Amino acid sequence: MPLIHEEHFRAVENLLYEWARAVDENRVEAICELMAPDGRYTVQSRFNADRGLPHALIDARSAAQLRDRIRSMRLANIYEPQHYRHTVSGVQIVGGEGAQLQVRSSFTVTRTMELDGTMKLFAAGQCEDVVEVGGAEPLFRSRRFKLDSRAVETLLVIPL
Amino acid sequence: MPLIHEEHFRAVENLLYEWARAVDENRVEAICELMAPDGRYTVQSRFNADRGLPHALIDARSAAQLRDRIRSMRLANIYEPQHYRHTVSGVQIVGGEGAQLQVRSSFTVTRTMELDGTMKLFAAGQCEDVVEVGGAEPLFRSRRFKLDSRAVETLLVIPL
Amino acid sequence: MPLIHEEHFRAVENLLYEWARAVDENRVEAICELMAPDGRYTVQSRFNADRGLPHALIDARSAAQLRDRIRSMRLANIYEPQHYRHTVSGVQIVGGEGAQLQVRSSFTVTRTMELDGTMKLFAAGQCEDVVEVGGAEPLFRSRRFKLDSRAVETLLVIPL
Repeated sequence: MPLIHEEHFRAVENLLYEWARAVDENRVEAICELMAPDGRYTVQSRFNADRGLPHALIDARSAAQLRDRIRSMRLANIYEPQHYRHTVSGVQIVGGEGAQLQVRSSFTVTRTMELDGTMKLFAAGQCEDVVEVGGAEPLFRSRRFKLDSRAVETLLVIPL
Repeated sequence: MPLIHEEHFRAVENLLYEWARAVDENRVEAICELMAPDGRYTVQSRFNADRGLPHALIDARSAAQLRDRIRSMRLANIYEPQHYRHTVSGVQIVGGEGAQLQVRSSFTVTRTMELDGTMKLFAAGQCEDVVEVGGAEPLFRSRRFKLDSRAVETLLVIPL
Repeated sequence: MPLIHEEHFRAVENLLYEWARAVDENRVEAICELMAPDGRYTVQSRFNADRGLPHALIDARSAAQLRDRIRSMRLANIYEPQHYRHTVSGVQIVGGEGAQLQVRSSFTVTRTMELDGTMKLFAAGQCEDVVEVGGAEPLFRSRRFKLDSRAVETLLVIPL
């Protein structure tokens, strides 16, 4: 069983929660500050990830690339107003070397359409993260959202 | 990023979990003991809350008023037997002055009808709480359930 | 309100998360290592549990019996490929005698079918666990998944 990593656990957990809250509060830009400038953010299906297939729904290879994508969401994409609600659970530190910790958590995202209030279980899966704890505040070195489903019904406009 | 507030975090988290468990175990009356006598409990849509609109689905301005509402639920309301199941996640202490802490968390509520067993994602949103940690046990000074959806399909009989 | 049990809390929480992750990562066999050899694992409806009715969907009276059931799932059962995703929340230590702790948590399970990607809120309820903390690592003395719904639509092939 993974060690408890009492020393860093709360800071790591808080980092994951901060990301989720930024997206859910429609402050999506703020997630770029939570990853290392040369970090990586990926949203991929479990099916592809387990087979080592490279295709991903989102694959940002730096914080700047993620920032660009969010800007295009704000400026260019036309989509129905909607809110995400993350449920993050089961946070575990499953390994680590030096100041880089391997972190696992489960997530579900409920999406609510603003106009008619329809709620829908939109996405579910596991996060595979590497968190750097060497600096003043912990940062994501890499985040991978692995979706349990291969089918995401609509365009994934807002990052998870 | 919010501070970790290691000192009070577990006690605050436990208070939130205790509230959810009291409702889910059909011991709804017990939540009145978890708020300050002159505390406030509100259930409001995100739409109204973000615009400063006062309309709320429930707005109890004291523990006694909440107790009255629960009593009327037990005695007067006629509704199909049902269970709630809260998922509380992402608990963060985001600020505080003295012994009053600002707390955020995400919730979803799954409702199961007792007769036919139908399960439904019933509500999702964010809790904005002020928790007092000065006394023997932490208490809610105020609790606001902000629903992501403007449309709550049926009468909200049981408090969230 | 239950005590905080700071000393054991993180280890107990981690044990619950490890169980959920083993099932969700399709390493179901690993859960047998998380319970005492003569422990008990039960999945039962809230309706039956609250009335003291003995009927259960699964009732394994030892780790070996659970292991057998999982082997039969792997070898004999024919079912559509599917993934579970647990959301575990509200972990509380509500009592305990010596090294045996009474633990409560809420769970939901989202099921995703591998072929067409359909996601469904599959199960919701409460875990009533007894966790032994006397040994090198905590172990489940008993686990009871109490389902809020009496109706589980399909055969419960994979343990929760």
